[in-house]
Amino acid sequence: MKDHHHPHKQRKQVVNRLARIEGHIRAVKEMADGGRDCSELLIQIAAVQKALDGVAKVILKDHLEECVVSAVDHKDLDKVLKDLQSALDHYIR
Amino acid sequence: MKDHHHPHKQRKQVVNRLARIEGHIRAVKEMADGGRDCSELLIQIAAVQKALDGVAKVILKDHLEECVVSAVDHKDLDKVLKDLQSALDHYIR
Repeated sequence: MKDHHHPHKQRKQVVNRLARIEGHIRAVKEMADGGRDCSELLIQIAAVQKALDGVAKVILKDHLEECVVSAVDHKDLDKVLKDLQSALDHYIR
Repeated sequence: MKDHHHPHKQRKQVVNRLARIEGHIRAVKEMADGGRDCSELLIQIAAVQKALDGVAKVILKDHLEECVVSAVDHKDLDKVLKDLQSALDHYIR
């Protein structure tokens, strides 16, 4: 069977969140270039980290809902579980 | 006395790292838009988080080296320590 491809309900939300995070990082870069205080930079970096945690959570939930259900239907559960575990290993620090 | 302004030795390095992170996030956004696997997106998001930890560490070290030394010279230690503590409170989760 082919790779597990399926619609992700939250894909648009994930792309929008990543676009906002991209803009946020650009603003932090401009702050650093403008010589803003270290403490202000650290606060903004922490905010970006929090936003990334948020988007990762949306992706994980979407994955559980869509990929796993679809894999069970197509009897491809082993591969999906292996992929998910590998992703979690990388994501959870 | 005025706000503590002083050169940051690592400023250029910080701006360059943030520029790379901005490009990385843009690439992840395009991956999400192209419907790439959730597990691949999570791995990339974890890599961005790690890069942000790295740039935060550079900023903190720079802060300790430059701001604190400069503050001691100018007897502004209280304000600097308060700023730094507030930044750490936000940054360390």
